[in-house]
Amino acid sequence: MIVDVSKKILIVGLGLLGGSYARALKRFGFYISAITKEQSSIDYALNEEIIDEGSTELDKRIIGDADVVIFALYPHVFVEWIEQNQGLLKSGAIITDVTGVKKSIVYKIQEMLRDDVEFIAAHPMAGREVAGVENSTDKMFSGANYIVTPTDKNTPEAISTCLELGRLLGFSNVTTLSPEEHDEMIGFLSQLTHCIAITLMTCNDKENMEKFTGDSFRDLTRIARINDLMWSELFVANKDALLTQMDMFMDKFKELKSMLQAEDIEGMRKIMRHSTQRRALFDKK
Amino acid sequence: MIVDVSKKILIVGLGLLGGSYARALKRFGFYISAITKEQSSIDYALNEEIIDEGSTELDKRIIGDADVVIFALYPHVFVEWIEQNQGLLKSGAIITDVTGVKKSIVYKIQEMLRDDVEFIAAHPMAGREVAGVENSTDKMFSGANYIVTPTDKNTPEAISTCLELGRLLGFSNVTTLSPEEHDEMIGFLSQLTHCIAITLMTCNDKENMEKFTGDSFRDLTRIARINDLMWSELFVANKDALLTQMDMFMDKFKELKSMLQAEDIEGMRKIMRHSTQRRALFDKK
Repeated sequence: MIVDVSKKILIVGLGLLGGSYARALKRFGFYISAITKEQSSIDYALNEEIIDEGSTELDKRIIGDADVVIFALYPHVFVEWIEQNQGLLKSGAIITDVTGVKKSIVYKIQEMLRDDVEFIAAHPMAGREVAGVENSTDKMFSGANYIVTPTDKNTPEAISTCLELGRLLGFSNVTTLSPEEHDEMIGFLSQLTHCIAITLMTCNDKENMEKFTGDSFRDLTRIARINDLMWSELFVANKDALLTQMDMFMDKFKELKSMLQAEDIEGMRKIMRHSTQRRALFDKK
Repeated sequence: MIVDVSKKILIVGLGLLGGSYARALKRFGFYISAITKEQSSIDYALNEEIIDEGSTELDKRIIGDADVVIFALYPHVFVEWIEQNQGLLKSGAIITDVTGVKKSIVYKIQEMLRDDVEFIAAHPMAGREVAGVENSTDKMFSGANYIVTPTDKNTPEAISTCLELGRLLGFSNVTTLSPEEHDEMIGFLSQLTHCIAITLMTCNDKENMEKFTGDSFRDLTRIARINDLMWSELFVANKDALLTQMDMFMDKFKELKSMLQAEDIEGMRKIMRHSTQRRALFDKK
């Protein structure tokens, strides 16, 4: 193990994801501390024995003690925290994050960060439709992807540490991508997907539709129940990549619509066969 | 029971849906016959004891004996069957169907049908991603909707018989809609949903995306594995209603895109809150 269990790990932001990190890492016996807004979150985590200590204040000792700091905050809150409080970090500390967009965050943080602290970015692709440390679980990373997005400012040691962290958390696939590759991929697989779900859910307000709905519509709108504060910020933070994906989707949708208008059965069948073939790639292995 | 068990039921088209009908109705002891293309389907159903007799031919006795005939065929095959073979039906027989579109089928069949036979249309909103009588199950109707679409040509007796059939099959919700209401509703809840899934699945052919996919993308593309022959026909058969739904979706999608371009966080959050509220209506009760 590269990350030995004598390391002290601090989690900043003890919500669903931060809490699940604490829970998963505690299994190995790490000393885990937390800083978060609500005292009730600290109390819950202490009671569940998934953290060793915690504070709702910027506790200088807790922050200064940490060898690894995991920021599980909204993107702009993370940037502000580093701007205002990076002086409190231990020299030699490695910091990482859970932010769902990378290009607009990683370079900014690395640019402003002290030379004796290293930021290696990561995106745990896992979530639930519920929030809060009370819903945290060490099961949510099984079957999921953990993506590390190094830049040329990162050392091999920090990259290895971050990859190891992903494996310890229990992610099934731990990989690296450049911040740009990550944002293009996430723009398609996650953000475009959410755009479509909320559009489908809001484009037709006719009453009583729910009485006739089946599994197809339910599947396509499961993620239409969405944290508006977080996702609107993530969309804007990945604006260019997401707009490109939205245009690609709209072009194809218009093509299908033109075929329907022309009753071009063969054209539609070709798209459907392409769809069927390509979907097979995405089956759970 | 309005449909007493001495009635003989004929199923024309013994695939996934026809086979599931046979299986569900056999529980009550009905005499069930089947006419279908493949001898292997008849053999399977006889062996499983879900039909009493069957043929791959237009067996005059079997057809002439049936009090209720259920057509589980593609729309154009159903229309052709009635055109060519309605002379074989028993006087006083009630016929029904499983077709996923109504306006373009119901009036056409009722117009051409003999006066002593009545067609009452129905749409069982249930399916699986697999085909064939070998995959049939009497469980697939639990939790699902069965919609009867009467016109002013239908008698109260035939409407009651068809509603009773839906309940006997095990559907959780059995209701009536006009053919026009049905097609608008299905255009939105089912056909638009399939259009979106196949568009998402085919709009970006970049390689290796499947390595990073999560549950959201998988949920939105589950139905992108699609029977191209059947769905292209259903889309064209409901062309006007589906085009209207596609336009409504595209208008809303463009609105969201404009907000992203303008970085209109408040506008996006408003759509997301609307989406979250409206999705709650569609939770399984």
